[in-house]
Order: sequence, then C-alpha cells, then structure tokens
Amino acid sequence: MSKIGGRLTLPTDIDMIDETLRLKELLDADALRDCDGTNMPEELLECDGKIYATYYTTRKDNEWAEKNPEEIQQEYVMSERVTAKDTALRIKPMKGFYTEQLKINLLDDPKRWWEVMDRTTGEIVPTDKWEVDAETEEVVIQSVKYHEYTVSFLAFIIWDPVHMYNFITNDWTDVPHQLTFDVRQPKTQVYVKEKLKRWCEENPKVNVVRFTTFFHQFTLTFDEQKREKYVEWFGYSASVSPYILEQFEKWAGYKFRPEFIVDQGYHNSIFRVPSKEFRDFIEFQQIEVSKLAKDLVDIVHSYGKEAMMFLGDHWIGTEPFGKYFANIGLDAVVGSVGDGVTLRMISDIKGVKYTEGRLLPYFFPDVFTEGGDPIGEAQDNWMKARRAILRSPLDRIGYGGYLSLATKWPGFIDQIQKVVGEFRQIHEEVNGTKCHTAPFKVGILNCWGNLRRWMANQVHHAIWHREIYSYVGVIECLSGMPIDVEFIDFDEVRNGIDPDIKVIINAGDAMTSWTGHENWLDETVVTKLREFVDNGGGFIGVGEPSAIQHQGKFFQLSDILGVDRELGFSLITDKYNTLDPEHFILEDIENEIDFGEGKSSIYAQGENYQVLNMDQKYCRLVTNTYGKGRSVYFAGLPYSPQNCRILLRAIYYAAGMEDEMKKYYVTNVDTEVGAFEDAGKVVVINNSKDPQKTDLYIKGELKVSLDMEPMEMRWVEI
Amino acid sequence: MSKIGGRLTLPTDIDMIDETLRLKELLDADALRDCDGTNMPEELLECDGKIYATYYTTRKDNEWAEKNPEEIQQEYVMSERVTAKDTALRIKPMKGFYTEQLKINLLDDPKRWWEVMDRTTGEIVPTDKWEVDAETEEVVIQSVKYHEYTVSFLAFIIWDPVHMYNFITNDWTDVPHQLTFDVRQPKTQVYVKEKLKRWCEENPKVNVVRFTTFFHQFTLTFDEQKREKYVEWFGYSASVSPYILEQFEKWAGYKFRPEFIVDQGYHNSIFRVPSKEFRDFIEFQQIEVSKLAKDLVDIVHSYGKEAMMFLGDHWIGTEPFGKYFANIGLDAVVGSVGDGVTLRMISDIKGVKYTEGRLLPYFFPDVFTEGGDPIGEAQDNWMKARRAILRSPLDRIGYGGYLSLATKWPGFIDQIQKVVGEFRQIHEEVNGTKCHTAPFKVGILNCWGNLRRWMANQVHHAIWHREIYSYVGVIECLSGMPIDVEFIDFDEVRNGIDPDIKVIINAGDAMTSWTGHENWLDETVVTKLREFVDNGGGFIGVGEPSAIQHQGKFFQLSDILGVDRELGFSLITDKYNTLDPEHFILEDIENEIDFGEGKSSIYAQGENYQVLNMDQKYCRLVTNTYGKGRSVYFAGLPYSPQNCRILLRAIYYAAGMEDEMKKYYVTNVDTEVGAFEDAGKVVVINNSKDPQKTDLYIKGELKVSLDMEPMEMRWVEI
Repeated sequence: MSKIGGRLTLPTDIDMIDETLRLKELLDADALRDCDGTNMPEELLECDGKIYATYYTTRKDNEWAEKNPEEIQQEYVMSERVTAKDTALRIKPMKGFYTEQLKINLLDDPKRWWEVMDRTTGEIVPTDKWEVDAETEEVVIQSVKYHEYTVSFLAFIIWDPVHMYNFITNDWTDVPHQLTFDVRQPKTQVYVKEKLKRWCEENPKVNVVRFTTFFHQFTLTFDEQKREKYVEWFGYSASVSPYILEQFEKWAGYKFRPEFIVDQGYHNSIFRVPSKEFRDFIEFQQIEVSKLAKDLVDIVHSYGKEAMMFLGDHWIGTEPFGKYFANIGLDAVVGSVGDGVTLRMISDIKGVKYTEGRLLPYFFPDVFTEGGDPIGEAQDNWMKARRAILRSPLDRIGYGGYLSLATKWPGFIDQIQKVVGEFRQIHEEVNGTKCHTAPFKVGILNCWGNLRRWMANQVHHAIWHREIYSYVGVIECLSGMPIDVEFIDFDEVRNGIDPDIKVIINAGDAMTSWTGHENWLDETVVTKLREFVDNGGGFIGVGEPSAIQHQGKFFQLSDILGVDRELGFSLITDKYNTLDPEHFILEDIENEIDFGEGKSSIYAQGENYQVLNMDQKYCRLVTNTYGKGRSVYFAGLPYSPQNCRILLRAIYYAAGMEDEMKKYYVTNVDTEVGAFEDAGKVVVINNSKDPQKTDLYIKGELKVSLDMEPMEMRWVEI
Repeated sequence: MSKIGGRLTLPTDIDMIDETLRLKELLDADALRDCDGTNMPEELLECDGKIYATYYTTRKDNEWAEKNPEEIQQEYVMSERVTAKDTALRIKPMKGFYTEQLKINLLDDPKRWWEVMDRTTGEIVPTDKWEVDAETEEVVIQSVKYHEYTVSFLAFIIWDPVHMYNFITNDWTDVPHQLTFDVRQPKTQVYVKEKLKRWCEENPKVNVVRFTTFFHQFTLTFDEQKREKYVEWFGYSASVSPYILEQFEKWAGYKFRPEFIVDQGYHNSIFRVPSKEFRDFIEFQQIEVSKLAKDLVDIVHSYGKEAMMFLGDHWIGTEPFGKYFANIGLDAVVGSVGDGVTLRMISDIKGVKYTEGRLLPYFFPDVFTEGGDPIGEAQDNWMKARRAILRSPLDRIGYGGYLSLATKWPGFIDQIQKVVGEFRQIHEEVNGTKCHTAPFKVGILNCWGNLRRWMANQVHHAIWHREIYSYVGVIECLSGMPIDVEFIDFDEVRNGIDPDIKVIINAGDAMTSWTGHENWLDETVVTKLREFVDNGGGFIGVGEPSAIQHQGKFFQLSDILGVDRELGFSLITDKYNTLDPEHFILEDIENEIDFGEGKSSIYAQGENYQVLNMDQKYCRLVTNTYGKGRSVYFAGLPYSPQNCRILLRAIYYAAGMEDEMKKYYVTNVDTEVGAFEDAGKVVVINNSKDPQKTDLYIKGELKVSLDMEPMEMRWVEI
C-alpha cells in the first residue's frame, strides 16, 4: 500500500456530515463534491481539502428562461415518416415526442428554418408546396401518392434532458422541471456571465467550479411515454438556433439545411460517415464554444478558483481532442470511467493541468440494491481502469452519488480502500515517468480520427451493445497495452501517413464511419495504403475493414488482407481454405478464441494467406503478406485478457518486429506487464479474479516466476 | 400399390444385359437409357419399351474439332487481379487456369476482343496503353502505381468441362480429352446437322434422342490444379465467340464489351443484379439457340424419333421458361430432381409433351460405398419430390448411373419399387386432374422473374450452401404447397401487378438479384407495392427484403414490413420490441422455429407490428398491418415440414384469408394434404420418417383421424 494520500474526491450530501468526515479521514480524500440533487453542507466547507461545486450554466434558473422564451435552447428534430395515401398529407411534427420536454418552435419562420422532405425520392419539397397550420401544429403538404414525407423542425427544449433523466431515474417529485437556456444568445450570455461572477463572490469557500457543463447538451430526446427515444452522446442536434445558424451561414459561406442535422433521421449518429457540412458545423461550434467557455473560465480564475469541466451532459462543442479545446484554459477535466477506453478519453486529454476520473459504480439505488453487486462492479471497473492508468495516468479519481448507500453496503468501503491504495501506489512507483511502449505507433483509421480519440465504435458512453462489443474490444485492449496509439482519419492517409506509425487498424461494420465506406473508393486512399504495406507496414482489419462493393471486391484491401466477404456473388467460386493454426500470433494462446459477434462469410484468397482459425468453412483469423508488409484479419475481437495478448502479438507480427515484443513479457495471458525504465520498476498485473502463475521475462531472460493473487498488482525492481 | 406400369426409365450398360432385363420386368420399366461413359448393349435394342440414346452435339468428335480449331467453343475469362507496383505491369492471363482445359485465343485480335481494366478506378485501359507479348502470352500494361488490373480475354475450351468432370470423378484413364466445338459457327453447323442425320439413319432402334444438350455449356472452369475454379449452372460465359458477338452487336445496336460477360470477375453469377447488356445477351442467345435447336429437333422428327432435352450441361440459351423455348418443338425435357424445387424446374416447363425427372441417388460410387446411405438418400429425395409432384406432376421418372451398384446394395431395389409404386399411384388416383389450390396466387419477386422460375437463391443445382438454404427453403416449401406460384420481376411490378396475385414474397440477401438492390430506389416500384398492400395485398419478406440504404432506411419497405435492419446508424435510437407470440401464424406450431442462418439485427418499428419471435433483443418473425394489407417478416426460412406449415399460415394471413386455409387441412405439421376435387380424392402425406397421427378436416369438419406410417401416402375418398 502507498504511504501517500490525496488524489481522491468524495461526494457528500446535506445529511451526511459526520459520515463524510469519517470517510474523508479513512480514505485520506482531499476533495469533496456535491452532485445533481445533493447539496454541500455548510459545515463541510470549513474542512481541509478542496471543495468542488457543480455549476450549471444552462439551467437551474427557470425565472430567466421563462422571461426569455426565445433564448431557450433548441433542437432540430425530424417528424415521423408519414406515407401519403393521397395528394394532400397532414403531418403533426410533434407526434412521438414528449411535449413536456420539447415544444415546437413557431416563433421563428418555419419556411426559413424547417424542411419538408420527400423521403422516397430524397428531394426537398419546395416551401410553396406546404403550409403550417398553427392551430393544429400540423404541416399540410401537397404530396405524391405513396411517397413518404418527413418534416424537419426546430423545437424548444423546455425540460433539460439530464434533469429530466435524473428526475425520472431517482423518482423525484415536487421538483420543478428545469428549462434550459442558450448561453450563446446575446441576452443570456450577458446574464450568465454576471451571474457567474455573483456566484463566485457568494461562494468564497468553493475551490473548484465544476462546470456541468457548458452550453449544449448532447442529443437526448424522449418519446411521448417519457422513455428515451434516441440519445447520441456525441450529438449536436441540441446545439442549434436561428441565431447560431445565421452565424454559421456567414462563417461557412453556404446556406444551412436542417438535413445537415437531422440526417435522414439518424441525427448524425457517430456511426455515420460525417457529411462535409456536419464536419463544418462541428468546427464552427468548437470555435464559438471554446471562445465563450474561455470567458467563463477567465471569470472563475479571476476569483482565484479553479475551473473544471465535466466530460458529459452539455459538453457538445468543447471536443477535448479538437484544435480549440486548449484555448479554453481549463484547469481540469473530470469524467466517468466505464472501462479502459473511457478512462483514456479523459486521461489522454491535453491542455489541462490535471484529469480526474469518476470510477464506477455510481452510488445510486439501481446498483446498491438486492441482487446488485457493487463490489464486483467496482473490481471489474478497476481492473479495466488500472491497465489504462498504467499507460496513461489519470491524476485523480473520485466517486459520485449518495455516500449513504456506499457506507451501508458491507465490504464496499474496504474495496474502495484497495482501489484508492493501488491508484496512489501507481503514482508513487511511477513517479511521473512514462511506461515503456513498442518502438512504433499504431494508428486506428476511421472517419473521425483524433477528434474522437478512444471513441471508436462507441454508442453513448461505455454502454454494451451486441452490435459493437466485438469492435470496441480492439480499443479496450489497446487502452491498457504498452503501445502508443494514434487515431487517424482518411485525410491523414491522403496527405501522407505519419512515419512513426507502423501498423494501421481498420475495425467496424461496413458503411459506418469506423470503416470509412466511400473513402475506399478513393484511389488515393487505397494506393497510399498499398504503398504503406508494400514497404513494410502492417494492416489489421476487424469485421468489415475497407468494405464497400466496387469492381469485384467488397473489401477494397482484400489484396492486402488476403480475405474478402461473401455477399453471394462469388458463391459460384470455389474456395479451398484450410486451417493452419501454427503461427506466432497463437503461440501462447491455449483457450478457444472469442470472436464475439465476429463477421461471418469471410473467405481467404490469394497466394500468401494463412488461415489461423475457422468456423466451418469460414475464416475468422487470417494473416497475409503483401510485399514487405503483413496483415492480420479478425472476424471480431471483444475485450478479454486473452484477446489483449492475441492483439499484442498480431500488432508485433504485422509490424514485422516479433523479436521486440519480448523486451518485457509475462507468459500468462491473464497477466500484463508494464515497464517504467526511468523509475527502475516493472509492474505485473493480474487481470483476472483467479490466482495466476506467470513468468516475467526481461530482454528474453527469465527474471522471476510470480504467484499472483486474484487481481494483484506486483512491482518488481529492475 | 398401383396396378399400372410404365412411366419409368432405367439406365443400363454393356455388361448388364440380364440384370437390366430382370429389373425392367420387376419394376415394369418402359424405357432404357445409356449414360456418359456407358453403352447401350445391342441385345437390349430389341426389348419392348423405348430406347433413349444420349446424343452430344458439341463433343465426341475430336477429329472435327482438331481440323477446325477456330470453331472450337470459347469462353470469356478474366485474369487474376494484379497490382502494379510500378508504371509497367505484366499480366499472364492464363495464370490460375488449367491449360489442358482452356487455351488462350490469340487467333482473334486481342485489341478487338480483350479488355484491360483498371479495377481500382473501374476504367477501361485504352488499347494503346497495353500490348500482348505473344511469345510469353503476357499482357504488358502502362500502369498506375498500386492500381489493380485485370485482363478479360477469350480462351478456347479444349476439354469439354463435363467430360473433364466425369473423367476426374470416375477416375477414367486412357480416354482422350473431348474437345468442344461451337455448333453455332458456320462450318460446324452444317457438319453437325449432317452428322445427326447420319446418326439417325444408323440408329433405327433408338426411339428417343436425348440431347445432352445443345450448344453451350454452363460456366464450368477449372484451376491449374484441375480443381473446380468456378461453376455457374446458369452462366453464359462459355457461349461466346467473335462470330456470335458480331451478330450480337448487329442485333443489339451497340458495341459488345468483355465486361458484359466477365462482370468484375463475378461471371454474372445469378446472384448479381443482371445488367441490361447481360439481359440483352441472354435474349439474343435464346433467339439464336432456339432457332438452331429447332433445326436439330426437326431432323430427329423427320426420322420418326422423339427429341428430348437434358436440362443441364449445354443447356445455356435454351431457357425453358423463356419466350422462345416452345419454338424448339421438343417432345420432352429430362432433368435431375434434387428436391422439390428442382422437380418444379422440370415439371413446370411448358411447350413439351412430357417431362421426366431423374431421381436421386445417382448410381455412382460416391454414394454406393461404405458409410454411404443410398436408401436414406432415396427416401429424402422422394419425400421432397412427392410433395412437388402432387402440385405439378412429372410425367415420368428415371434413374441414372451404374445399375450394377444399385442391384448389389441390399434393400435398395425394394426402396425404388416403393417410389415407383407411389409415383404411378399418384397418376392413377389423380387421373390428370389438378390439385386444389388457394383462391389466389403468390408472386416471388426478384430480378429474374419467370425466366428463372424455381431457381431463386440457388447456387448450381440443389447444392446446399450455408449462405442460401435459409432462403431456398421458401421455394422448397412452396414447391409442394397447394398454392399457385408466379415468379415476377420488377418490370412486372412497374407495369402493374397481376390481379390474381394476392401475396408477394421478396427473399434473399441485400445487394443480390433475389431482393433487387437498386430497384428499390425506383419510386415506381415502392409506390406500386405500397398501393398493392394498402389495398389489401400481402407482402412477405425474408432476410433482407427491399434492402438498399437510402434516405434513412435499409429496408425500403420497412413501413410495410414493420421492421428494419440495424446497420449501426440507429443504435442511438431506443427500441422497445417485446414478444407476443399469440398469432394465427403460430397456432399449431409446437416446436422451436428454425430460422436457419436468419439475418440478425432486425428490429420492429412503427405502430402496427407484432413480434412473434425474438433472439435476445432482435426480431425474427414479425407481422405488420399497412392499410387494408398485411405483411410478415422472417429472418430466414429453411425447409422443414414445420416451416412449410408456418409459411402456409403466413401466406393465408398476409392474404387476409385465414378462413380459406382450412378448406382442406391436416392438423399435424409433419403431414400435408392435397385435394383433387375433380377426381373426388384427398391425399394425405407424412413428410417425416416417424409415424404420425393427424386429423383431416374438410371445410372445417373433421373427416377422419389418421394413423400414418412413416413417409406414408394415404388416399381418402371425398
């Protein structure tokens, strides 16, 4: 256990003063925070350590919102798809939405800001062919029989979606629905700045203003039954208003269309290949949001306080991996750590003084209940987080929710003590030095590149989906591997691949932003990548890499990958794939490989492939050589300790540097090693809940055989 | 057992005279035939009954072929895809092909008949940018670095592919490779006609000339290791020559391109949405092939013999379901019966006097061997064939192969006796009357329509593939169901759906000819179908019906189907699908439903759906209503007795005519009923190898409770 303390934030509440003080002492916490729905007791303001105060820029002030209805936040939404069965059609845009959350905007001219689409043809219905019936709030369209139509329209967000979510989740009653106002708009901007100054003056004991968050909520829309309708954690749908869009038009030099936001009803899901216009809009919003956020941060600083941003809720437009984020001048970012990937989404952020991760479980009644397993959740969460912290350290950790729930659960606080102890020990042993990594970088290639670093193939935030876990596994494995990872987009391929990158990974489903879709029709992209591999580079494909049907291939890099996917067209072609699992990649792999929901119908072809794993006649793991380079294909790669090892081996194989892999190496696939050469230390972690024996090799020589406790972290001097 | 005999053809061989006579007597056969590799003994020519003689128009005459090398059959083939790593590239077109099967055609000008393609851009490489090096048989291309290239070229078929296949399969030695000549070409045409006349004169005892077949072999190409490389039973690749193509150009009015045939290397797999040019070519070939085939048939008739066509081998261009087939004037078609579907491919043919099915197993050593189960194969084959015969009777059946193998297998001849007996009994009981069918037609909608009747989703001919059996099941079920089935193409939807059709089925994978791909972008197609269903029509989708990504939907008829497929873009949208299996379709379904390789990621949406079956959160069987019409979605539907029942129920449900279904009905799903009202008979068949109890209802009233033997067929008077 570490002898140092601190680096820990605890939540509190009005009725938990003694308990908070006891736990603060026991866990040696150096900061306390309030949460949405909790209050910081006056008495605790006097304790040593920092006080964080959650600060909402866009809500908790219904009086202001109600006085300025035209400056309430707005969202672009799309009506249901309605089929015309005659030559006139009435659509009620708000059908299917929750009228206590959204209110149709009839203040701004619909003919200027709405769009009626013929979804059968994909054409815009001219504005002279439809009218708004203000009384019934319907749109009347001159329609073509059996064509489908939608209305894209603006709606005011009359109940802040996060407030509504917390309200419903916690069964609040008698709490007024919080409206959400748009800080970007002129009157509100002045008001909010003045209010922040007043607040800073009135709260001298608060050390850290924890912005939750700035101006625009991610897309979170409810249906008429108050259920989630759609939620896009990365979504910009609720960051619009005529005021903003007119500025955008001036900046971009072209006319705005609602379609740029509603995107056929997909609301620019991060899985969509982003349109140029949507990318422009994100760029514009970053510029404007970072400028205004800086103003607020400057105010906070002027009162001698720190400014911290919560990575969530109204984070839209801040884009911590974008070009403008550092300009905001924040002291810190705090976010929720669901796994290794979401930890890296926080700990990799540049341009702040420190980062803080809120570990799981959140102290909420859904986990701390009969049948719940908060200790198990805390362990799983920590094992994933720990691997990632060793590669990219967070500066602080913390917890959220109701402290009373945590203290009443037998053994839970002991578990927290272990986590906090190990976290501090890492900082103590590592002492600011960097973990040894492979002598090359790995590049994850997708349409989003570094802007969405560690966000690839994600839905919302660390939420499991059957459709994604076999891809998210790739970056979850990487989040804790001794490999420097870059996230690159197709323009970076077009403009010349970073020479430090030796292996490129393309993972995901066909048609999505993650694999790249029509980018693979661009001869520049395919020829640059062929040249890269031909000259010794490595390419790893997972799922449907480089997929788009064109000129006799589905995988446009099937020549490099040695595999393609059967879509029916080549069923007439005989395949003679046979299994040959003798390979460097599988050398210490003993258990069945888990390919998750791995893509089926994959066959190998060409003259240079080796099939390492098959499912009946289909291939699931194939290597190939191409000139001086190599490739590896995985049908899927969910996270597991064994898959981490397989991916590590695949990367070194693809890089043609198998010999380098064993500079620091542990034999048992359930264990991993990190080397901190400048600190003279090696750490071995057991990523399983069972005891493990593992041999530690350094530069090819057996250093020590270790008997590891379940989940143990062991430090060894070198 | 039936008291009538005949309707049966047996194979024979030179050393099987007595055995043939014994079996002919025992089974009461009325025809004998020879096979490829067997000979008809002189002694048997005198027996009563018909004598069939296999006649090859295009081979078995190497002397002629060798004297006329320019009239040897040709095939369009595509070279390997080769990536240029420099600005000059050499491709050896014949690499990967078997040089004893194909010989590159350097007689006809390559610049006129070949095509070099840049497969990276999809552009034709101009003829001044490449040259043929005749000495090395290579093509030298001015290339762009890291672009992929192919050469499409003509090759002579110097070993008939079927002869080669039989040669290899039967381990023949010392048999000269048979060349294959092109009967369409002028010298060979004259020669072949004269030869046929001579042959007819020299074979007065032969009653039936069994053409095997006419002029063009389906695509069957071998690799350099003599293995099948690709085989397309429906393929036209080997029906080309400059002589024919110049005629085509005149007929079509545009220039021919090799790409029309090689089709990016997919060789116009029947799974491909056929290009206009390929459809034109099929049309042209039908016109020419039917004219020339008629000449040969007329010769046969002039000698008082019958002309029979084998549906296979050189059948290309005959298209028995095409507009020109009847003009040939054939007496009969014979084909192999692999299952119900392939039986209907024969028995549904119009324009001949009779049809004959060659049942399985073929008497070949691969089945009649230790570990083989010829009796089981004969039973399975017959149970599938029997259902289909009841709906669309064949006139004759027969067997093929080596009779000696069949007679030596204990119990096999007994099994054949049962089959032959039941076959004759059907004819006796039915007495030429038609089976009662539903009071409406079902239309299978795909890109091929009636031209490829009963061929949907097929690879080769009754070959099982993991990728197709879940779709072939739809037509296998239908092949024996009391439903009139039409196969319609998208033009028939555009021009107005046949008013007799009450239910339309679209089944298959996205992008294929079976679902229709870009046809679903055509507003005429989608609006006509919406109108059809809205007015009371039914629509059944299996797999990826109406699939093409467009304007926010993958299934373009998702509004009708009530389902769409998740491609990642709508993962952000919440789905609230819950199971509700109480439905007419599942009323007497007791076992787990088999969806085969059913498509995953299907979710229900809209307001009118009911989810009848789920796999975790995905849907596999969903009904929906749309106006006055209904739809049913299946994730997949492999053949099984239970799935026949489910499909029957789904069709009646979709048609809105549930009450009509029970006009003739048996309760046990392993049994089926056929009603022959004009003959005053009802037949109940047990489609399983177990005894079954089943209740027969007629017009809603219990007629009789039946205890059925395994596989039994029972006739009941009405």
